[in-house]
Amino acid sequence: MENYVGLDIGGTKILGALYDETGQILKTVKKKTKAALGIDTVKEQIVKVMTELTEELTRDLSGIGVGVPGLIAEDGVIEFSPNIPFSNVDLKAFLSEKYGCDVVVGNDVNVAMYGEWKHLGLSTDKTMLGVFVGTGVGGAIVMNDRLYIGQGSAGEFGHMIIVKDGELCGCGNKGCLEAYASKTAIEKHLIKHAPKSTLAKQLVSGERLKSSQLKKACLDGDKAANEAIVHASKYLGIGIANLINIFHPHAIVIGGGVMTSLGDIMLPMVLEEVKRHTMPGLFETVEITLSQLGDFSGVFGGFKLIRETNIKST
Amino acid sequence: MENYVGLDIGGTKILGALYDETGQILKTVKKKTKAALGIDTVKEQIVKVMTELTEELTRDLSGIGVGVPGLIAEDGVIEFSPNIPFSNVDLKAFLSEKYGCDVVVGNDVNVAMYGEWKHLGLSTDKTMLGVFVGTGVGGAIVMNDRLYIGQGSAGEFGHMIIVKDGELCGCGNKGCLEAYASKTAIEKHLIKHAPKSTLAKQLVSGERLKSSQLKKACLDGDKAANEAIVHASKYLGIGIANLINIFHPHAIVIGGGVMTSLGDIMLPMVLEEVKRHTMPGLFETVEITLSQLGDFSGVFGGFKLIRETNIKST
Repeated sequence: MENYVGLDIGGTKILGALYDETGQILKTVKKKTKAALGIDTVKEQIVKVMTELTEELTRDLSGIGVGVPGLIAEDGVIEFSPNIPFSNVDLKAFLSEKYGCDVVVGNDVNVAMYGEWKHLGLSTDKTMLGVFVGTGVGGAIVMNDRLYIGQGSAGEFGHMIIVKDGELCGCGNKGCLEAYASKTAIEKHLIKHAPKSTLAKQLVSGERLKSSQLKKACLDGDKAANEAIVHASKYLGIGIANLINIFHPHAIVIGGGVMTSLGDIMLPMVLEEVKRHTMPGLFETVEITLSQLGDFSGVFGGFKLIRETNIKST
Repeated sequence: MENYVGLDIGGTKILGALYDETGQILKTVKKKTKAALGIDTVKEQIVKVMTELTEELTRDLSGIGVGVPGLIAEDGVIEFSPNIPFSNVDLKAFLSEKYGCDVVVGNDVNVAMYGEWKHLGLSTDKTMLGVFVGTGVGGAIVMNDRLYIGQGSAGEFGHMIIVKDGELCGCGNKGCLEAYASKTAIEKHLIKHAPKSTLAKQLVSGERLKSSQLKKACLDGDKAANEAIVHASKYLGIGIANLINIFHPHAIVIGGGVMTSLGDIMLPMVLEEVKRHTMPGLFETVEITLSQLGDFSGVFGGFKLIRETNIKST
């Protein structure tokens, strides 16, 4: 029996899962990233996750597959990460030396998409898009049986402009999809349009919203929360409609933290908007689903990546 | 020596070109489509173009390659065309019987893209997008050495929404790129924002603008014309920036009637806007050029399609 670890390193938390070679999860560990405390602390947090995951293992680890937000060079070096103090960090070498096994490091959205794609097991000539709604909005493209990255950075669906001169986005542009449909956008919407709401007060005090908390507020009938979600869903629908008009793909999977929590509430509204804005006849042909892996698409993608690398190299 | 005809059937005109097997143009003929007079008249116009093209030929024609706006089934039947009264018309059979040769019929934008692609001779692993600005805005995608059409209708770049709840588009939606950057959009902009201008008066009288006329007005310092072109260029730039963020392609070629006439004036403005709205580092990596074939991308694409079909089948 072989064992693999999938790691999903996010801006706020690190999720790790220990897998056996069949893809069965044996254990999961979640810890804070502590990105603000610097790269050495982040590495310590990663090691803590690894230690807890592997402490009961009686055999060597066969490999680690990692997803990290940011720009990852072909050799696995993290060139730049927007939310974590990784700058030219060779996480692959660090983990490989420390655990004596093969390591694959990839962009978090691409790794998550790889997980979703392998999980769905679509036939190889299908085009599948992934839209991941979390702190930001990420995207990924699978076609011809592989992740399509163009010259390297394809899939920046979150920075498709859908409102010329619209809301300011974190990227510096205005009117990006991410400025309307991400958790950050939902938070800003609450502060702007319902400043007296409980959630807005929490945000103003410096505490960020959890998606699960937002879901609870919606289900509890919180008007401000529901309006913010309706607003985000409409714009997300327009973004996805644009992608359908551009790619006419076979399938679109919608994942990420926000959709994992709020997908049940948001999806019907998103679909209504997608239908309204796609060219005649297209909407019916595209299978649009929520991620079935939810928070685990990243770790599963990491597992699949390293497992298949391992199969090829042995 | 073999001879081929490339036909580009548009909503207002039919352009035909007679080619030898090396791709040399021997003769070109242009006639009005007369779409408003019904399908029989359109067929008569096509025959007139064919007759003039081939009247001096001393040998049989080896093939005809045709581009038509609209939805073309795999067997070459035109299922639907937005501007021409083609509805389930088997133009392929009609031409094939009449001229006793092989015929290929394809969507006009895809055929034009095929022409541009073959003309540029890019290496096969490159991704190339085509944006064609004419009466509407069409798009096409080449990757993995072939036209990418997804489930059949990919490349509808003109119906990417860039202004939520924006200008009404011919497709019924609001805020599509086509509602800002097409010739139709430029005409509407003139009527709305400069109703007293010479060009607007001409439009109100029912006469449509020619791109060449628009160019002349711009060069003559016509304020209304220049403003309309600046406006269209900005939105076109946003649309193209979105495509770069989505595909990170190697090359984008911008063609179509409007760009063939006005490309020299519009391209610098378009590029400025593209640069402003692409993710850091991407703009510099994408080769954005005006179509070198101009009005002839469709007929050349038709020639290339039928010529290569012919090579394969013999």
